[in-house]
Amino acid sequence: MIKYPNGIPNQAKEKMPVKVKQASAANRGMGLESRINLSNEYYHDKNHAVITKRPTPINIVKVDYTKGARITDAYFEKQSTTDYNGVYRSRYLDFEAKSSKLKTSFPLNNIYPHQIDHLRHVLDHGGIAFFLIEFASRDEVYLLDASYIIAYFLHNERKSIPYEDIKKTGRLVPVLYHPPLDYLAVVDEMYFK
Amino acid sequence: MIKYPNGIPNQAKEKMPVKVKQASAANRGMGLESRINLSNEYYHDKNHAVITKRPTPINIVKVDYTKGARITDAYFEKQSTTDYNGVYRSRYLDFEAKSSKLKTSFPLNNIYPHQIDHLRHVLDHGGIAFFLIEFASRDEVYLLDASYIIAYFLHNERKSIPYEDIKKTGRLVPVLYHPPLDYLAVVDEMYFK
Repeated sequence: MIKYPNGIPNQAKEKMPVKVKQASAANRGMGLESRINLSNEYYHDKNHAVITKRPTPINIVKVDYTKGARITDAYFEKQSTTDYNGVYRSRYLDFEAKSSKLKTSFPLNNIYPHQIDHLRHVLDHGGIAFFLIEFASRDEVYLLDASYIIAYFLHNERKSIPYEDIKKTGRLVPVLYHPPLDYLAVVDEMYFK
Repeated sequence: MIKYPNGIPNQAKEKMPVKVKQASAANRGMGLESRINLSNEYYHDKNHAVITKRPTPINIVKVDYTKGARITDAYFEKQSTTDYNGVYRSRYLDFEAKSSKLKTSFPLNNIYPHQIDHLRHVLDHGGIAFFLIEFASRDEVYLLDASYIIAYFLHNERKSIPYEDIKKTGRLVPVLYHPPLDYLAVVDEMYFK
């Protein structure tokens, strides 16, 4: 992670607090996953929450035990659940993070039916379920309750969600230094007030 | 899984319900992990809970993209958390499953300090945390609250927990056909009454 502790050019725009835009400049270029992982480490270190990334599932074909259990043939499997889950303020949290390169919409084709099914079940059992959706070119990340995305996925003919809808329905996640993405601040607002 | 719908020899012993011992005969030989995975599938299908196994973390060294992203060099990493977590009756559940080949004790050396640390944090945040400990030669699985194992791990000089202590402190998990290990029945008793 590249940090600019001093001398950050003030890129503040109207409606955006100065602090947020400054941190954003330092964060820029860091992938969504890295920012979430660093945020989860921060939350863990501060004893705010225990949220972990599920390892990528891999199907192992061959292991060479003569080299101390070295995997010599394997392939990636589709994640049948979501990338992240954990516990926060005694509640179960489950979410998926997706980045869109498009400026005006979020394509639904990188969400799998299995993930939708998984999140529906999580909601059924009283868990908190949401998506973090990044518009990379805008440097904005929104938190949307899973129910909204599920409804879109199941009942809408469109293959993508317009940016304006996400902006209206979702909540903008604060971009800071530590944590890089303070999504639990949004969780507090949405689920604990 | 081998099923014997009819004609199961009655292996019931005193103090053990007939049903449990019959199912146990069918289950015998199935590994602890397989039995838990099948139980989790059962719970999922019946919409009782969403509990999943975290994939084994693997460190990928080399990927051959000419073969469609085939992994040609990788190695296993230690699980820094636990094997299972999920949501049940609106609560966060997190547990580790371990099998002992010994008849009279459970060795503590196959629990990692990272896992203890993880489970302490889960308890701090209001999650339900426990161990499922199998005595393979006895065909018995016990559920023990994580706090008990944590205390043993941190404060006891012994390198193992005697079977008699586990039997006294833990609760025997019913061995059935479907699910093979009904550990949520024990969770109901311990955490929801």
